[in-house]
Amino acid sequence: MPVRYDGRQPQELRPVTVERPFRSAAPGSVLIAAGGTSILCTASVDEEIPPWKKNEETPTGWVTAEYSMLPGSTAPRKRRDRSGKVDGRSTEIQRLIGRSLRSVVDMAALGPRTITVDCDVLEADGGTRTLSITGGFIALVDAVHSLESLNGQARQVFTDSVAAISVGMLDRQILLDLNYYEDSRAEVDMNVVMTGRGHFVEVQGTAEGQTFTRQELDAQLAAAEAGIAGLTSIQKDILGENWPLDSFG
Amino acid sequence: MPVRYDGRQPQELRPVTVERPFRSAAPGSVLIAAGGTSILCTASVDEEIPPWKKNEETPTGWVTAEYSMLPGSTAPRKRRDRSGKVDGRSTEIQRLIGRSLRSVVDMAALGPRTITVDCDVLEADGGTRTLSITGGFIALVDAVHSLESLNGQARQVFTDSVAAISVGMLDRQILLDLNYYEDSRAEVDMNVVMTGRGHFVEVQGTAEGQTFTRQELDAQLAAAEAGIAGLTSIQKDILGENWPLDSFG
Amino acid sequence: MPVRYDGRQPQELRPVTVERPFRSAAPGSVLIAAGGTSILCTASVDEEIPPWKKNEETPTGWVTAEYSMLPGSTAPRKRRDRSGKVDGRSTEIQRLIGRSLRSVVDMAALGPRTITVDCDVLEADGGTRTLSITGGFIALVDAVHSLESLNGQARQVFTDSVAAISVGMLDRQILLDLNYYEDSRAEVDMNVVMTGRGHFVEVQGTAEGQTFTRQELDAQLAAAEAGIAGLTSIQKDILGENWPLDSFG
Amino acid sequence: MPVRYDGRQPQELRPVTVERPFRSAAPGSVLIAAGGTSILCTASVDEEIPPWKKNEETPTGWVTAEYSMLPGSTAPRKRRDRSGKVDGRSTEIQRLIGRSLRSVVDMAALGPRTITVDCDVLEADGGTRTLSITGGFIALVDAVHSLESLNGQARQVFTDSVAAISVGMLDRQILLDLNYYEDSRAEVDMNVVMTGRGHFVEVQGTAEGQTFTRQELDAQLAAAEAGIAGLTSIQKDILGENWPLDSFG
Amino acid sequence: MPVRYDGRQPQELRPVTVERPFRSAAPGSVLIAAGGTSILCTASVDEEIPPWKKNEETPTGWVTAEYSMLPGSTAPRKRRDRSGKVDGRSTEIQRLIGRSLRSVVDMAALGPRTITVDCDVLEADGGTRTLSITGGFIALVDAVHSLESLNGQARQVFTDSVAAISVGMLDRQILLDLNYYEDSRAEVDMNVVMTGRGHFVEVQGTAEGQTFTRQELDAQLAAAEAGIAGLTSIQKDILGENWPLDSFG
Amino acid sequence: MPVRYDGRQPQELRPVTVERPFRSAAPGSVLIAAGGTSILCTASVDEEIPPWKKNEETPTGWVTAEYSMLPGSTAPRKRRDRSGKVDGRSTEIQRLIGRSLRSVVDMAALGPRTITVDCDVLEADGGTRTLSITGGFIALVDAVHSLESLNGQARQVFTDSVAAISVGMLDRQILLDLNYYEDSRAEVDMNVVMTGRGHFVEVQGTAEGQTFTRQELDAQLAAAEAGIAGLTSIQKDILGENWPLDSFG
Repeated sequence: MPVRYDGRQPQELRPVTVERPFRSAAPGSVLIAAGGTSILCTASVDEEIPPWKKNEETPTGWVTAEYSMLPGSTAPRKRRDRSGKVDGRSTEIQRLIGRSLRSVVDMAALGPRTITVDCDVLEADGGTRTLSITGGFIALVDAVHSLESLNGQARQVFTDSVAAISVGMLDRQILLDLNYYEDSRAEVDMNVVMTGRGHFVEVQGTAEGQTFTRQELDAQLAAAEAGIAGLTSIQKDILGENWPLDSFG
Repeated sequence: MPVRYDGRQPQELRPVTVERPFRSAAPGSVLIAAGGTSILCTASVDEEIPPWKKNEETPTGWVTAEYSMLPGSTAPRKRRDRSGKVDGRSTEIQRLIGRSLRSVVDMAALGPRTITVDCDVLEADGGTRTLSITGGFIALVDAVHSLESLNGQARQVFTDSVAAISVGMLDRQILLDLNYYEDSRAEVDMNVVMTGRGHFVEVQGTAEGQTFTRQELDAQLAAAEAGIAGLTSIQKDILGENWPLDSFG
Repeated sequence: MPVRYDGRQPQELRPVTVERPFRSAAPGSVLIAAGGTSILCTASVDEEIPPWKKNEETPTGWVTAEYSMLPGSTAPRKRRDRSGKVDGRSTEIQRLIGRSLRSVVDMAALGPRTITVDCDVLEADGGTRTLSITGGFIALVDAVHSLESLNGQARQVFTDSVAAISVGMLDRQILLDLNYYEDSRAEVDMNVVMTGRGHFVEVQGTAEGQTFTRQELDAQLAAAEAGIAGLTSIQKDILGENWPLDSFG
Repeated sequence: MPVRYDGRQPQELRPVTVERPFRSAAPGSVLIAAGGTSILCTASVDEEIPPWKKNEETPTGWVTAEYSMLPGSTAPRKRRDRSGKVDGRSTEIQRLIGRSLRSVVDMAALGPRTITVDCDVLEADGGTRTLSITGGFIALVDAVHSLESLNGQARQVFTDSVAAISVGMLDRQILLDLNYYEDSRAEVDMNVVMTGRGHFVEVQGTAEGQTFTRQELDAQLAAAEAGIAGLTSIQKDILGENWPLDSFG
Repeated sequence: MPVRYDGRQPQELRPVTVERPFRSAAPGSVLIAAGGTSILCTASVDEEIPPWKKNEETPTGWVTAEYSMLPGSTAPRKRRDRSGKVDGRSTEIQRLIGRSLRSVVDMAALGPRTITVDCDVLEADGGTRTLSITGGFIALVDAVHSLESLNGQARQVFTDSVAAISVGMLDRQILLDLNYYEDSRAEVDMNVVMTGRGHFVEVQGTAEGQTFTRQELDAQLAAAEAGIAGLTSIQKDILGENWPLDSFG
Repeated sequence: MPVRYDGRQPQELRPVTVERPFRSAAPGSVLIAAGGTSILCTASVDEEIPPWKKNEETPTGWVTAEYSMLPGSTAPRKRRDRSGKVDGRSTEIQRLIGRSLRSVVDMAALGPRTITVDCDVLEADGGTRTLSITGGFIALVDAVHSLESLNGQARQVFTDSVAAISVGMLDRQILLDLNYYEDSRAEVDMNVVMTGRGHFVEVQGTAEGQTFTRQELDAQLAAAEAGIAGLTSIQKDILGENWPLDSFG
């Protein structure tokens, strides 16, 4: 089986590095990189909840996310989202990040506050939405652990851990963790979000101008599952004693 | 196994009706309904192509989609998207419809023109994005067949047919074609887009505040596959001799 | 006197059809057509009143309207009003529809609630603003009759009925109910809104690049008056026992 | 017949004053006042034509208008139209001003250029849209006469003069040239645009929450006709030898 | 030393005229002109304070400013700021005007109300931002004196007077009060805001594509100081007994 | 003389660190920090020039800047500038950065291309606009040196170097390089931009609710001059042989 042009095996992850905390005023702050993709994930706490939650009998918390690419993250330079126009791609991505992070949070245990996870891409070389989830989870855990009012019960806010990876098909071969070059040529592009316990949170497989069979779908899911196990292990090492649950991973 | 509150079996489709052509000035125009969901799908032809395609050596065609809900489609009334603000949900949906329709079109055979498929929801009772794809495909075929310049080669523009269905889990039971009541209570919501030949175009499985196992994923995919076979058969009956390819379905 | 290219006499209305209720989640819902113009009029009830009414001593109700053309209603396709930019024509039209409907409603009898009448044009072949008023009135009556809290006093909410028609001059001849072909060539374009009792609500006569004499104005008003009597009779037949006032029409 | 609270007879105009040219960098510039309403009308020339006119075989000219109220023109202060939101009233008014001015211009004689007439209200006490037309016409004539390339043929650009006045009904009495106090209490509000030769350009009669009979309509039109004759005479005096056509007025 | 093309000496102000009150509905209203620059400054009072001031223990007042150029103030015509887009220049200018006026107001003495000073440029020939401050101060004083609730203590609201002037360098010569022709050719453009007592409020010196020495900076400051003394004297004459403080100027 | 609460002398700079290149896809990329303020400055090259430069006989280049604060740069979190609304402060700052950088660039030597310097604040503790200029200059030099078409003439593109610092008055004492705590309490806030040769580019001194004397202005300018000499020396060390001109610094 041929190696990829950056020397990786077809189902090998890019090397991941994490700087934590990174320069920021937020209680959770992580600079995560995978190959040529770098993202600054910060998690800020607001002791308010969204208006639509205020009618709940026992108001619970909320976790939301925003995603943006810095102008210098691509060449040629990417224009800023300042005009108020819809950038459909960013909207889709930040909704995905928010849903993924919420899937492992016990909103009652979090209490009536909002945590916003901002994912600002410094360098974009493929896989920015999945790396945002993997890094955003670490920033979120740190922000929750900064809350003094939780009295040492911060780990109980999490029901599981969460990470994500991309997988796809190029020349009908299954590739894990595609970089930009591979992603732009892939026939199928799939993003998979899973928990540390091995459950699915999101499966988004997309073929543009192509289709894929059930067998190909199964092979991609298997590769993603292995990749996410690797990322979960990295998250656990980094978080140390703040790793949410002893009983898994 | 218990029936659903509208009397359907867990994996039974809602009855589908199609009025074609429906009141419109567009060459493709379909009013498609499934239970309490009704959508007007129109397909308009513009003999221009998008600016970013104009540098292609041999310019090919393009298919795009827009999705909107009429204010009276829900109770309480839905406000219009007029303010220029981002409605993330509509943006996501119309990108999905566009990708799905493009996956079965040979852009070179279509020739340098743009077809816009507009999906305007008249009544919303769940499954609007998938029904937009199923009905939008019919409107698209009609619009292509209205093109005199194709000289009777309209069927060759399509490489396959396409339809879509939702599937999900409610109380850990697999349900096909969820209505609004079921969808708002489901633990997992999955939209599956497949071709008449049985290949996947999109798989979007989402759990908000929940997760699902690989076994549950497989069961949902199987239910969706059966549902789409039923919808493909309805499309074939309606399109008659304009049904794109004899060799399938 | 020569007939028009669609065979009508100069002062003959186009045939009108009404489907009621039409597919919608709103309590009032009418698909009205006149020749090649079709409009979906829905009337939704909101048990709130606008902020500027909240300081009234005895808060009364409000009726407002929105108007929009679906993209497939014209060929070539009409772009959606999504950008937040001012579409002056739509704004003018929906203000006219709102004022016209309010002129026959007793806001105190309606009570502190807002009814929004949405007029979405499916096919546009001239006269969309006047047909919106004629059809919108029917939807509004139906919505008022759906209000259980009125205890059978729904008819008292209306002080009169209202309908509208266009009239104009082409080659200095007076034409009633212009279609798009005629409208785009007319020297004068006039929209007249009248009640079932024969009173005027709005008179909007416009000459672009032309003028008209007082005698020509009078002839147009007479033609409009006859046309509106015909439309009022159609409204009365459709509404049956919900027709607001026995004492007129 | 009782006089009005400012001492006027029911069908008497407010006194009109005109400063010309007024402080501005535009070739046409008029400060027109009627009672407590003051408007700065400027007419600027651009040697371009709108894009949609560029395909004409022999490109002709265009006249357009913009209308705005300065913040200090009302008490309490009026907020500026800066947010990009639709102010329906301003849009309607500037479309009316533009149509009215165009009705007396020979676009071929004007030649391929655009004149923009800006009407900025300094003080608003009723009748701002009609006074904008009356004053805007004077600014427009001045701007046309500033064009050296017309070689002394500036008067031929105009086929007629144009002026406008409001008329309405208050306590069922016909009042000419309503001020703000009267306008806000009127049952019917009508704006009439006529030419110096006595032809109609626009008739906009509006009843909000009221209706009016044919007889009342006729009485209002007669009052407006007399008022416009008075304004035309003022325009003629001011414009002197630039008054467009000797043969009328 | 050579005179300037309009005949002025290098450090001579343009002649200043003030009409007060000018046509407006606001309690403070001034038409100020300096050479070919004319600005309508109005000051309106709102008995509300901004939301961010409402938490103050003893709420004090606020003064803010808006700046806009009328379309006819320049040739070619300036487009209106209607699109909601950022016009950076206008924003900068109105922030400067607001800060300058606030520097001489005792917000506690003003009491919990907001005064908005609108500066609308009728003719622009250089120096619009500084003339807005000089004229805006007069309008502000008038608005404060219109407040009956101050019981004759209006003069105590002001701690000083304020005026502003531009100065710059053209061909390395120091020029005071630049007109547009000079401003567009200047190597350095400086705006200086000072009080009647001779203190600085703002110093904004800008070189685009050039730089300036400390010695040149000192010479410009000296020229500005002399110019502002002249403007202060004009303000004092106009305001008469409303001139804030006897003890200076 | 008392030290400041972070232990600095009144006129002592905060320690400056620079990481270069930092994670980015842009040819110039610098992470610069001064105390608790950190900014990512990237410089991207576009081989186009702005439309308004295209009519120049010999088109020259352009340098522009954008400034934004990441949400996590402040606590509480700062909302993104996405709504299309005017953020006056950001607009002012990015115009200042652009002008400052352009003041030391020979646009003809740069050639017909645009360099955009993006300054994204990661941590904000005062002085973000001045540090953006100091760091942006380094990124700009790097981007210019990445241009192969300049054939080793990159140093000739610069006529000087540029850096900036804030200075102010707190309790009437002159402080250099204010942090956020000091800045929010200062009576006067001044930003000074100077070149390596010691010339002024911008002087912006602002007093809100206070004023300052000429003597105080002079003292602030002297402190700024010393601070900028220190920053210039840091820039020279970092840029090494790319330092623009041997003859200064």
